[in-house]
Amino acid sequence: MDNSSPSLLRLRLAAMLAIGFCASIPIARSTDSAPLMENDLMPVPAQLRFSPGRLRVTETFAVAVGGHDDARLQAAISRALRRWEARTALKLDRVAVASAASATLVIDSREAGHSIPSIDEDESYTLDITASKATLRAPNVVGVLRGLETLLQLLNRDADGFFLPVVSIHDRPRFAWRGLMIDVARHWQPIDVIKRNLDGMALVKLNVLHLHLTDDQGFRIESRTHPELQSSGSDGHYFTQDQIRDIIAYAQARGIRVVPEFDLPGHATSWVVSHPELASLPGPYAIERHWGVFNPVLDPTNEALYRLLDDFLGEMAQLFPDACIHIGGDENNGVQWNASPRIQAFIREHGLKDNAGLHAWFNRRLSAILARHGKTLIGWDEVLHPDLPQPAIIHSWRGPESLAAAARQGYRGILSNGYYIDLIHPASEHYLNDPLPATTTLTIEEQRRVLGGEATMWSEWVTPATIDSRIWPRTAAIAERLWSPREVCDVNDMYRRLAVVSVRLEEVGLDGERQHGFMVRHLAGEQAAAEDVKALLTLADIIEPVKDYRRGGLQPGVVQSDPLTNLADCARPDSAAARSFAESVNRFLFQPGQLDRVQAAKIVQQLEIWNAAGRKVAGRPAGTAPALNETASVAQALAEISVVGQDAMQALLSGHAPDGRWVIQCRAQLHRATEPGPAAVEFPIVPSLELLVAAAAEQDQRSSLAPEAWRQHLRAIAFPPAPPTS
Amino acid sequence: MDNSSPSLLRLRLAAMLAIGFCASIPIARSTDSAPLMENDLMPVPAQLRFSPGRLRVTETFAVAVGGHDDARLQAAISRALRRWEARTALKLDRVAVASAASATLVIDSREAGHSIPSIDEDESYTLDITASKATLRAPNVVGVLRGLETLLQLLNRDADGFFLPVVSIHDRPRFAWRGLMIDVARHWQPIDVIKRNLDGMALVKLNVLHLHLTDDQGFRIESRTHPELQSSGSDGHYFTQDQIRDIIAYAQARGIRVVPEFDLPGHATSWVVSHPELASLPGPYAIERHWGVFNPVLDPTNEALYRLLDDFLGEMAQLFPDACIHIGGDENNGVQWNASPRIQAFIREHGLKDNAGLHAWFNRRLSAILARHGKTLIGWDEVLHPDLPQPAIIHSWRGPESLAAAARQGYRGILSNGYYIDLIHPASEHYLNDPLPATTTLTIEEQRRVLGGEATMWSEWVTPATIDSRIWPRTAAIAERLWSPREVCDVNDMYRRLAVVSVRLEEVGLDGERQHGFMVRHLAGEQAAAEDVKALLTLADIIEPVKDYRRGGLQPGVVQSDPLTNLADCARPDSAAARSFAESVNRFLFQPGQLDRVQAAKIVQQLEIWNAAGRKVAGRPAGTAPALNETASVAQALAEISVVGQDAMQALLSGHAPDGRWVIQCRAQLHRATEPGPAAVEFPIVPSLELLVAAAAEQDQRSSLAPEAWRQHLRAIAFPPAPPTS
Repeated sequence: MDNSSPSLLRLRLAAMLAIGFCASIPIARSTDSAPLMENDLMPVPAQLRFSPGRLRVTETFAVAVGGHDDARLQAAISRALRRWEARTALKLDRVAVASAASATLVIDSREAGHSIPSIDEDESYTLDITASKATLRAPNVVGVLRGLETLLQLLNRDADGFFLPVVSIHDRPRFAWRGLMIDVARHWQPIDVIKRNLDGMALVKLNVLHLHLTDDQGFRIESRTHPELQSSGSDGHYFTQDQIRDIIAYAQARGIRVVPEFDLPGHATSWVVSHPELASLPGPYAIERHWGVFNPVLDPTNEALYRLLDDFLGEMAQLFPDACIHIGGDENNGVQWNASPRIQAFIREHGLKDNAGLHAWFNRRLSAILARHGKTLIGWDEVLHPDLPQPAIIHSWRGPESLAAAARQGYRGILSNGYYIDLIHPASEHYLNDPLPATTTLTIEEQRRVLGGEATMWSEWVTPATIDSRIWPRTAAIAERLWSPREVCDVNDMYRRLAVVSVRLEEVGLDGERQHGFMVRHLAGEQAAAEDVKALLTLADIIEPVKDYRRGGLQPGVVQSDPLTNLADCARPDSAAARSFAESVNRFLFQPGQLDRVQAAKIVQQLEIWNAAGRKVAGRPAGTAPALNETASVAQALAEISVVGQDAMQALLSGHAPDGRWVIQCRAQLHRATEPGPAAVEFPIVPSLELLVAAAAEQDQRSSLAPEAWRQHLRAIAFPPAPPTS
Repeated sequence: MDNSSPSLLRLRLAAMLAIGFCASIPIARSTDSAPLMENDLMPVPAQLRFSPGRLRVTETFAVAVGGHDDARLQAAISRALRRWEARTALKLDRVAVASAASATLVIDSREAGHSIPSIDEDESYTLDITASKATLRAPNVVGVLRGLETLLQLLNRDADGFFLPVVSIHDRPRFAWRGLMIDVARHWQPIDVIKRNLDGMALVKLNVLHLHLTDDQGFRIESRTHPELQSSGSDGHYFTQDQIRDIIAYAQARGIRVVPEFDLPGHATSWVVSHPELASLPGPYAIERHWGVFNPVLDPTNEALYRLLDDFLGEMAQLFPDACIHIGGDENNGVQWNASPRIQAFIREHGLKDNAGLHAWFNRRLSAILARHGKTLIGWDEVLHPDLPQPAIIHSWRGPESLAAAARQGYRGILSNGYYIDLIHPASEHYLNDPLPATTTLTIEEQRRVLGGEATMWSEWVTPATIDSRIWPRTAAIAERLWSPREVCDVNDMYRRLAVVSVRLEEVGLDGERQHGFMVRHLAGEQAAAEDVKALLTLADIIEPVKDYRRGGLQPGVVQSDPLTNLADCARPDSAAARSFAESVNRFLFQPGQLDRVQAAKIVQQLEIWNAAGRKVAGRPAGTAPALNETASVAQALAEISVVGQDAMQALLSGHAPDGRWVIQCRAQLHRATEPGPAAVEFPIVPSLELLVAAAAEQDQRSSLAPEAWRQHLRAIAFPPAPPTS
């Protein structure tokens, strides 16, 4: 595999073009007679049908509860109306009224639903809105919660004020397990972060909060049976049991499960800080401050380990009411087990074959402990082994194949491969990643074992100030993948709706947009003029943090305690500005007939703005301070690649093809810009600029080629096949 | 007093011109040999002297503690370095090193300071920075805290990276009591709001947090002796005693006192919800949801009241370690006392003369209770009465005269009149409001009784989302007034430094700027295009909420539970855009010689941006929803008054004076724009536009008048004297 930048570029462009291509396929949606463009909902309901007419939302709006009523339902109604009030500045009665006849919204739920949110919950609902009344029906209160979020999203406004469209919705989720994992171990995330993310989850109908509570870098949960675990393993940053109860209640009110993870037997450095005797090699151990896979692993041959785990997991089983406990199980690198003659002897004595056999033996013991405490084991891919007792759930970070393999062996599973939002890939990729693609070869029964998936927010590179912008809005696209029918997969339409849902996510307290402005102002510094800040904002909008695990390589010195306030932290995934630019370039170059002068003007203007912003930022004193230096270099690169684009546009608009030397220079310059430096950011506009350069150079060919041939030709020129790897 | 808009306009303009005038007076500052423009500090130190040279701040920066050392000092050092790290992305050692010789910063404190922050604390410090070392000396740790904030503010950057200027600072506060009052009763403000405001206070060296804990609209403190008080009086929104201890510890770490206020005997509705028998008239009573002065008042003739107050105040005296307890005492309207024959009889029987006599009698009882619990009474103006026992402190909301009167009678006092930041006046007004003006006629001894002042954030119109933008940055100007020498009063320089300190306030977590963007996006709605949001931001930047108590009159229906998410909540005090426009207009019109074409271009461009933004916002569907309607009207007005300005500029630049009819029409239009509608916002640019219109109409006079005469002439034309009131 060639990991050089041109190859990455090609991949990116391929994705970009694939999206463009997919968007041109009309999506067959038997359930929706109205044009998709009228639907702002995310996730898209299983069935919806708009009809003409509007139900006005004014201060006379009133809610009645027809069927089952309880405190959770009342609180949800009050919250919903409060959100509408804040959005509309209308004064609404926040308490349900008695009479269904006089109410604008009638809610009819048959029962309370499980007192502990469960994977068996029926989350379906129907929502019928006529020009005079809205009716929300569900078998239980959780269905009502889901329907209320849909109702909240349906509010719109026109020249006569606020309204709900006349619509009939029958909705239910495609998958029962729709999760978000937050790693609170590597960078501590306090309760505020968790609560506002629970609100975001509820908004897009996610139903499992998976808390990654222990890892090498921190033990983030209060144990009362073994308080040394958190007191030695957490720097004082952990959830108290009271806080956990608070989180669980908050989640329960929103119909969300809370699944705790205690990573075992690897990723266990923070355990053995206080219990070095339980590690596979002698200590002492200190909390890990770096990122990666580390050697410390618990010793499965030590019976004291199982006594401690029984105490601890018994305590946690009491604290967390959910049916599942996640035991991690990933990335034990085997170094300590290999280095321990005693452990190797144990493997031989017990006929366990190898480290994997020992791991499976450990998991059997764990599974028995969990079963005794009434819990189902869930673990990452590595726990899948012929010896793994049922019931168990496999959490796949490796991919759909391992998920399918588990399903064939009778295990239930959830997918996270493809939903690693910490890797900064665009929402489109996550969106098109299906736990059960149409091409699946699983039987119907095997398919039923695929429960859903989870977006995973690993926290090496996020703080409470940046985590929201890494989770949202992209996780809303994943939420739609897990809730909506498989056929809902129009990427352009997803992005359109994602922009709408982003504002709603901010409404419930998610902080990505707010913090972004702050991060940029902060980096610009308090002596910055308004124009300096504006230029830096422009720059920040057109870069993305490097993807996958590249940042660690580019910023190798960064450890847990370092501030994450650099340019890469100001940058956000999935640059909307770059997407919009790509769209303009595509339209400009590939529209049949003449070059589109309107798009051309837009492109030229945009390039000028970027060039000016780049020069402005690069022109500020930087000196030896690394953060400023890095920012200045990136800004300089932006100024330069904007000039490449401007030259290409000039050549295209003047009709004079530039010479080969120009092409080589331009491409060298763009190539340089794709090599992220210590700032650890990249320019998602480069593929579009490559296309412009190719088009400028090849413009004489355009008139002689059919549009699709021209497109193919330019792609071949702009993104030549990778040289064979040696 | 004529309260019509033209009069308000005149007042505003007078202030504006006074500022311009004051700015032209060179401030004599014997203590500062360097030009003031190089000094970004706020508050300005008592003495500072810059010298050539810079101390570089790199990753080798290290701190040593030379003298007294303790946990508070270590925590402060760690916090300070953490803030620098986040600002610079440099990795600094966050723990003090052993050796003073190898340290970049040596801290030398003689002792810990009072364990409970006290008004007697010596907050002085000296800071000497050479090109190789910084030395911070203080008699105690509180002085070090103040000096560290100065040090943090001194960090700057140049082409070689970050540095501290070479400087010698001898600093100490002018007043010992420098407070911020937060009213958590009318709109509940949770602990997060309090903590981030404590950080802001520390940054600008304020040292008293005054919590207004009880009022008609809420009883916001847990009583364990009388839990019915908060359970019936708070809707569940109150500080637990644990939270109060947390706040006090947080404040203590920053050298800040926490003074609680329990408003007695008026403003007491929330007390009598659970204790109607203690009211002066029979109940029942409910928590007040409106704003204003209400009748419920405690009955001073009821001995049961003193038993409850003894329990409660005894408990609070234990909880709050500060030497003072504030007992309010304001705005008892006398209605209930007058209506009670029993109370009137009590007054006669006890020879108390009138209600004021009864109030004084009550205060004597209160004072005795407080004395028994070891506390000094502080109360608002109304508690001042010949019978008030010493020691007591008078908190003046009425003005410097009542403060002076108290001082003459031997009482200590603090000033809040002129620091009512809820009234949305510009920072310049607060800044020039001196508790002890140079013109004071008090003797030196009487002057010593003037302890300082407090900014007061009454919370009728603020929520946690907007309170920070109402408190900051204006409170930083008040903090400077209370800390810095009286002679530091250059308003232009204050505004320049205020912009710098605003970024630093955001750094410590204050949310005004972040929330502002959100509020605007929220009001624009989730269907708004990027340009719609941008236009609304432009509009929001050029309006201010109405001042004084006008909003209640314009939005009479608003009660405690209503969302505050309207245009007035998006608007902020003291529009920087309006100030900058006024400066351009002043320069354009009043520079000697030719009209300034550079300023002219700026003005014309600005008016075009406002006009376009106004049209854009006004052009969005509004319909019958009040919030949208109001916003559209304001936007329409902005578009119209921008056209007035454009016409005036055109007339001025073409040299053709328009006819009288045009002038009349323009002024009518500007006048209409100064009448705030239900949106409850106003246009601070109107005075500048009035000047432009007058200048256009009178331009033939310009060449024949000296610059100052021309200025006087235009002012007389633009702001004619108010008609006599009838």
